[in-house]
Amino acid sequence: MSGRLFDRVALIGIGLIGSSLARVLRRDSPGTTIVACARRAETLATVRRLAIADETTQDPAAAVAGADLVVVATPLSAYSEIGRCIAPALREGAIVTDVGSVKGAAIEALAPTLPDRVQFVPGHPVAGTEHSGPDAGFADLFHDRWCILTPLPDTAPEAVAKIAALWEMAGMRIATMAAEHHDKVLAVTSHLPHLIAYTIVGTATELGQDLQSEVVAYSAGGFRDFTRIAASDPVMWRDIFLANREAVLELLQRFSEDLTALQRAIRRGDADTLHDWFARTRAIRRSIIEAKQA
Amino acid sequence: MSGRLFDRVALIGIGLIGSSLARVLRRDSPGTTIVACARRAETLATVRRLAIADETTQDPAAAVAGADLVVVATPLSAYSEIGRCIAPALREGAIVTDVGSVKGAAIEALAPTLPDRVQFVPGHPVAGTEHSGPDAGFADLFHDRWCILTPLPDTAPEAVAKIAALWEMAGMRIATMAAEHHDKVLAVTSHLPHLIAYTIVGTATELGQDLQSEVVAYSAGGFRDFTRIAASDPVMWRDIFLANREAVLELLQRFSEDLTALQRAIRRGDADTLHDWFARTRAIRRSIIEAKQA
Repeated sequence: MSGRLFDRVALIGIGLIGSSLARVLRRDSPGTTIVACARRAETLATVRRLAIADETTQDPAAAVAGADLVVVATPLSAYSEIGRCIAPALREGAIVTDVGSVKGAAIEALAPTLPDRVQFVPGHPVAGTEHSGPDAGFADLFHDRWCILTPLPDTAPEAVAKIAALWEMAGMRIATMAAEHHDKVLAVTSHLPHLIAYTIVGTATELGQDLQSEVVAYSAGGFRDFTRIAASDPVMWRDIFLANREAVLELLQRFSEDLTALQRAIRRGDADTLHDWFARTRAIRRSIIEAKQA
Repeated sequence: MSGRLFDRVALIGIGLIGSSLARVLRRDSPGTTIVACARRAETLATVRRLAIADETTQDPAAAVAGADLVVVATPLSAYSEIGRCIAPALREGAIVTDVGSVKGAAIEALAPTLPDRVQFVPGHPVAGTEHSGPDAGFADLFHDRWCILTPLPDTAPEAVAKIAALWEMAGMRIATMAAEHHDKVLAVTSHLPHLIAYTIVGTATELGQDLQSEVVAYSAGGFRDFTRIAASDPVMWRDIFLANREAVLELLQRFSEDLTALQRAIRRGDADTLHDWFARTRAIRRSIIEAKQA
C-alpha cells in the first residue's frame, strides 16, 4: 500500500489550472501516474513537450479508465458532455472533482451524469493568471490561495478529505460552503470585476486609432491593471457569466446604482460625497493586505 | 557655472510624487538645494527624518524665495491659493512646473496667478502607486514611464527643455501635447479606471459584514486588483474627478452603454456576443506588453 493520495489521476482539460496541478503532482507525488486529456492534439503535443503527464489522450473515457481521481478542468460548457462520456468508464470508488468557477452550474451539469459507484466533490481553487494553456501553468500558482469545496449532501466525508488533502499539497487553504453561497461570493470577488474590466477595455478600444496608441502608452495610470484582467480566457469567461447569470445580474444592478450616484456627485460638484466614498474604499484594501491575499 | 539643471528647487507638496522627485534629485543632482514645503508640520518632520530635503517650511512664499525651479505637487484644489501665495516671492527667470493629473484645470488655476517674469511649464509624470505621503516615495517610481508636458503658447522652449531634462533624469520618456488632449487621454487611461474601481469596491463593502470577510479572503479572483486602485489618495482623486468633470462624464456615458450591452447579452444568454467582446479585449493587453508598460 502506498502513502500516495492517488495512484492514477486523469486530468480532463489541461490548461492553466490542469497543467499547474499536473506540475504539483509531479513535484510532490512522483509515483502518481498522470493522464492528460484534451480535445486538441496540439495541446497534448505541448503537454508531451513539457513532460507533465505520463499518458495523453483525446478520449475522456479512455483517460478515466482505472483512475482513482478524475479532475474536470475544462470550460463549464463542456461539463455535461464530458460527464456523459466518462460515466460508463469510471472505476468503482473513483473520486470525481472539478475546478469550475460556478459551482451551481458545475453540479447541475455533472452530478446527474455520474454513477452511484463514484464520489463527486465539486471544488474551486481560487487562483489564476490572465494566461491560458498548458504552457502558462506553474506549480506555485495555488500557493497560499483558497480552495473552496462545495460537497453535495450525499458526498462521502472521506472523499472530501482526500480532495482537501490534494489541494493542501498544492499549498492551498481549504474552505467548505454551499454551492449557492460560493456563487454569490465569487460573483463579487471575481465575476463582476472581470465583467467590468472587459467592459472598460472594450470601451477604450472603440475610441479610434489615434487615441488608442496613446491609451497604450499612458496605461500606467490605472488602465493597464484592467487590461490584464480583460486578457483572461474568453471561452472560460463567457461560460462563467452565462452559468452564474442571476448572481452577476443582481450585483450588476447594485454596481450600476452606485456608479450613477458617483456620476451625479461629479456632475453636481459634490466634493464631500466623493471624498467620503473614496476614503471608505481604502479600508478594505488594508483588510486584504492583513489577510495576506494582496 | 555649474552643470546642474537647477541650483535650488522648491517642492510645494511633498507626497508620493514630490518626495520621489526629491529622492531623484538627491541621487542624480547632489549639489542642488532642495526645499520641501507642506501644510502639516508632521509631514515635514517625516521629510527631515528621511533626509530628502535640505530645508523645510510650511510657508510656500518662503519656500520659493531664490528657487530657480518650483514644483507644485499638491492636490489640484490647493493650486490657486498656492499660486497667489508664491507669486510675489518668485525670483526673476524661475521656472514653475506642476505634476497634476488634469492639465486644463491646473493651467486655469495657476497660470493667471503667475507673474510675467517666470516661465510656467505644466507637466504630468504618469506614474504612481496606491500609497501616499513622503514615506511612500522612491526614486525609481518614474523609471520608463511617460511624462506629459502641456506648455502654453507663450512658454519659452528653453524652459520646456529644462523640465524635460529634469524628468529624463528621473528615467522618464517625454511627450508634449495640448492640455485638452491630455485630459481626454488620461480620462481613459486613469480617471475612468479609478472611478470604476472606487465604485466596485464601494459596492462590495455594502454587502453586509458576513459576506465582506469572505470577499477579502477570496479576493485573488480579480477583486484585489480593484482594491489596490481604490486605495489611492481620496483628496487627490476627489479633485481629479471634479477638475476633469466633462471628459470623465462623457466617457462614463460610453462605458455605461457598453456595460448595458454586455448585461443584455448575459440576460439573453447571447454567448457569441460575450465571446467576441472578450476575445477583442485580449489584443490591447498584448499592445501594452509590447510597449513595455505592463
